[in-house]
Amino acid sequence: MSNRQKVAVIGLGSMGYGMAQSVLRGGHRVWGSDINQDRVARFRSEGGEAEELELVASEIDVVAVVVLNAQQTETVLFGENGIVPRLRAGAVVLACATVPPAFAREMAKRCEQRGVHYLDAPISGGAAKAASGALSIMASGTPEAFDAAAAVLDAIAERVFELGHTAGAGSAMKAVNQLLAGVHIATMAEALTFGMTQGIQPETFVEVISKCAGTSWMLENRAPHIVEGDYTPRSSINIWPKDLGIVLDIAKSADFDAPITATALDQFKAAAEMGLGWDDDAAVAKVYARKSGLTLPGES
Amino acid sequence: MSNRQKVAVIGLGSMGYGMAQSVLRGGHRVWGSDINQDRVARFRSEGGEAEELELVASEIDVVAVVVLNAQQTETVLFGENGIVPRLRAGAVVLACATVPPAFAREMAKRCEQRGVHYLDAPISGGAAKAASGALSIMASGTPEAFDAAAAVLDAIAERVFELGHTAGAGSAMKAVNQLLAGVHIATMAEALTFGMTQGIQPETFVEVISKCAGTSWMLENRAPHIVEGDYTPRSSINIWPKDLGIVLDIAKSADFDAPITATALDQFKAAAEMGLGWDDDAAVAKVYARKSGLTLPGES
Repeated sequence: MSNRQKVAVIGLGSMGYGMAQSVLRGGHRVWGSDINQDRVARFRSEGGEAEELELVASEIDVVAVVVLNAQQTETVLFGENGIVPRLRAGAVVLACATVPPAFAREMAKRCEQRGVHYLDAPISGGAAKAASGALSIMASGTPEAFDAAAAVLDAIAERVFELGHTAGAGSAMKAVNQLLAGVHIATMAEALTFGMTQGIQPETFVEVISKCAGTSWMLENRAPHIVEGDYTPRSSINIWPKDLGIVLDIAKSADFDAPITATALDQFKAAAEMGLGWDDDAAVAKVYARKSGLTLPGES
Repeated sequence: MSNRQKVAVIGLGSMGYGMAQSVLRGGHRVWGSDINQDRVARFRSEGGEAEELELVASEIDVVAVVVLNAQQTETVLFGENGIVPRLRAGAVVLACATVPPAFAREMAKRCEQRGVHYLDAPISGGAAKAASGALSIMASGTPEAFDAAAAVLDAIAERVFELGHTAGAGSAMKAVNQLLAGVHIATMAEALTFGMTQGIQPETFVEVISKCAGTSWMLENRAPHIVEGDYTPRSSINIWPKDLGIVLDIAKSADFDAPITATALDQFKAAAEMGLGWDDDAAVAKVYARKSGLTLPGES
């Protein structure tokens, strides 16, 4: 097998598009696919292959699936025009959406029944790292699945955590990460607005807390959006009812009580109900501000 | 005024003792005071002044108060044997406990009525940083209070955040920091044990999450205690019902709703009710483990 691989990237959203670019830059041939044809056309103009993916599916080495959730993943893999039945034996599916571990195990089983490898490979890092090939990937799967995906992982990831030989472990770690990330964003919003009631300006909050024991990766990343009054979505509110919902579904199946996660989820749901679903997730601060009559930077 | 100052450190617990050592190392004369006479004797044997503090109170330049809470602070300053009435005009009180902002304002007012400066100066960083003179201090007070405390601040702090000319702002920022720190510890415990239900070992949790977007300062500091099964108290469970209680009292006064903080507080209260009050605060993970039938490292 030449090192130059034939790669399909299905889902050219903010993460998938950047990943597809990174795979191209890695020297591979890349077929981009999306329900949005403008994105497909744009990717082709930047070096993507021009043929329809359906026509070359049997030659594809790696299929990266970078869609929103489990349902879309299943449709793309096994739906009416699903790609798995057309793949050659030994090809690998790199499944990047945040999904329940049990779903990942089921997809892996169905792929393996057709001789297709499956790497449970949720991603972390955001659009900028996707585009620069510097994602963190929480991956689990058979050694054969890792081998088959190695060249593409090299192209898209700065760091691959190898979490075992069974699909599901990667998704479990991603769920753990999302639990923390979601709670930390909502807690940042709670603390920042609480500080405002005590006369602490948001910029002072960021300046001081980012150097103290109360800091978090999410606080340092998201609180500046509030300081700047800029809610252009780098990652949107709507991610969190979905991802924390997955966390709580998994928790429920395991008879595990996650009260802090549930309380954070309530804040994101309240933000979505305020019509902020497609705003940057730092806009969860507006839930607190509205309740307490506070005026955030950039609001009048 | 010579740069060699006469400094009282009242409260020789894990923070105060280290601070007193740092002030000594800064070249100052230091009188240590504590209800525990063994600690006083030990500090004297390490270079502290041998005279009773009461006998030299009128010569003291700086009084650092490193007790547990507002009540103890008030007792030390204005109680039956309180030190403020014996201080010379121009001396400064460096008030380091976590207290409500309104309490700090009241103490400042009462000190100023006697010509004594008051620096609202809660500390952050833990016992190791206290001992090495590398604390972070969230300070507010008059320029005269900052000037009078400057030499001692130099000796104990790596970083002094100057938060304005009014006592209370320092305590407000400390409350904000404690809100975040407390929630982050409890959330780490929730996420770590949730991960265990999905087969993620605590050491894998730390290894992966500390390099991902879900990390926090507290997670990186406390989760290793769980991995090692070592609950020797670096900072105890009992801190949190106190500090998060202060946060919620302030919030209530401001008509501010802090649901995530309240939910985290419940976990620390549950830990205290399990008899873990004097264990390291990472032991809050045992609340989750007990509910879910999980066995943490070091437990049998």
